[in-house]
Amino acid sequence: MTFENDKKTFLMKVDKSKKGEIDDRVISLMKTINALPDFYTTSSCSGRVYLWQGTGKKNETEWIKVSHDLIDDDFFRLSGDTNKGVVWLRMEGFIMHIACRDVVKANQLLEKVRRVYKKSGFLGVSNKIILEIRGSEFMEMPWLLDGGKLFSGEVQWLVGLLNSKLKKVWGDMKQLEKVIQLEEI
Amino acid sequence: MTFENDKKTFLMKVDKSKKGEIDDRVISLMKTINALPDFYTTSSCSGRVYLWQGTGKKNETEWIKVSHDLIDDDFFRLSGDTNKGVVWLRMEGFIMHIACRDVVKANQLLEKVRRVYKKSGFLGVSNKIILEIRGSEFMEMPWLLDGGKLFSGEVQWLVGLLNSKLKKVWGDMKQLEKVIQLEEI
Repeated sequence: MTFENDKKTFLMKVDKSKKGEIDDRVISLMKTINALPDFYTTSSCSGRVYLWQGTGKKNETEWIKVSHDLIDDDFFRLSGDTNKGVVWLRMEGFIMHIACRDVVKANQLLEKVRRVYKKSGFLGVSNKIILEIRGSEFMEMPWLLDGGKLFSGEVQWLVGLLNSKLKKVWGDMKQLEKVIQLEEI
Repeated sequence: MTFENDKKTFLMKVDKSKKGEIDDRVISLMKTINALPDFYTTSSCSGRVYLWQGTGKKNETEWIKVSHDLIDDDFFRLSGDTNKGVVWLRMEGFIMHIACRDVVKANQLLEKVRRVYKKSGFLGVSNKIILEIRGSEFMEMPWLLDGGKLFSGEVQWLVGLLNSKLKKVWGDMKQLEKVIQLEEI
């Protein structure tokens, strides 16, 4: 299959993410990238905050609550069974995977992306060349142990901290969009 | 310069890390990789726990305390000025950068590495091909706010949690060494 066919096929696929729909906040950036002839996006997440329990492995992990938007104190009001073991609080930044036509084009895009996201790189360069953009915003802390809270600060303060990180994530995404639009790739 | 010259020059260089010396725990794995004709390691860290304050940007961040070994309660006994703003507790897993002779060899190594470290990829594929191995163990939590502790659990329990993560990191490194020794690349 040619790159054009791959791109067409892929962009027609149904979204298979946990969220089940594409994040509103990423649509503009996605369109900007998919308008370029040598690239197409294959997945993305524009940041999220969630509470989870389990081992961290894919089939042994339960998401208790998740927000892709700013949170408030309510986020930490839990119902349901969280009385056993550790409940973790995690905040993840922006992540996006982009299929690239060839290595030359891939490197050109990476160079631009690095101006905003230093940790970006390639997932592989053999069959498909996939560029991974990865933000550096991240938090991971034990929140409950056997139902007891492990955080003794003000929840309001933590909510503000998490929200400021989310805003940083969205600001960086806007910046990337500008960088990509600035010059031709 | 040929790959051989690059490799020779690089491996003779003085260690420029924050720690100032190569981690004992990584030496065996490093030797295994550097014995292969098509690869050489350029940097690595075999996991660490540290307390830091600042913005998180390179020149605006102060490391208050760091351990590359198992920790005990003493790790959290702080002297010095930590009474302003947030002091963060961070645990990082294994990371290693490996220069590869060419894309074919790089992909062969990546395929092996992925059996242990799913998040691995390439930092770039233009001038130098650098494979980044990255463990998934990570923690980042606010520890102090204006000198007041934000963690209300037992420090002993947290010490155990961090140490079990460090042990997981070292176990995975051993596993990678075995995977690499198993078949020729």
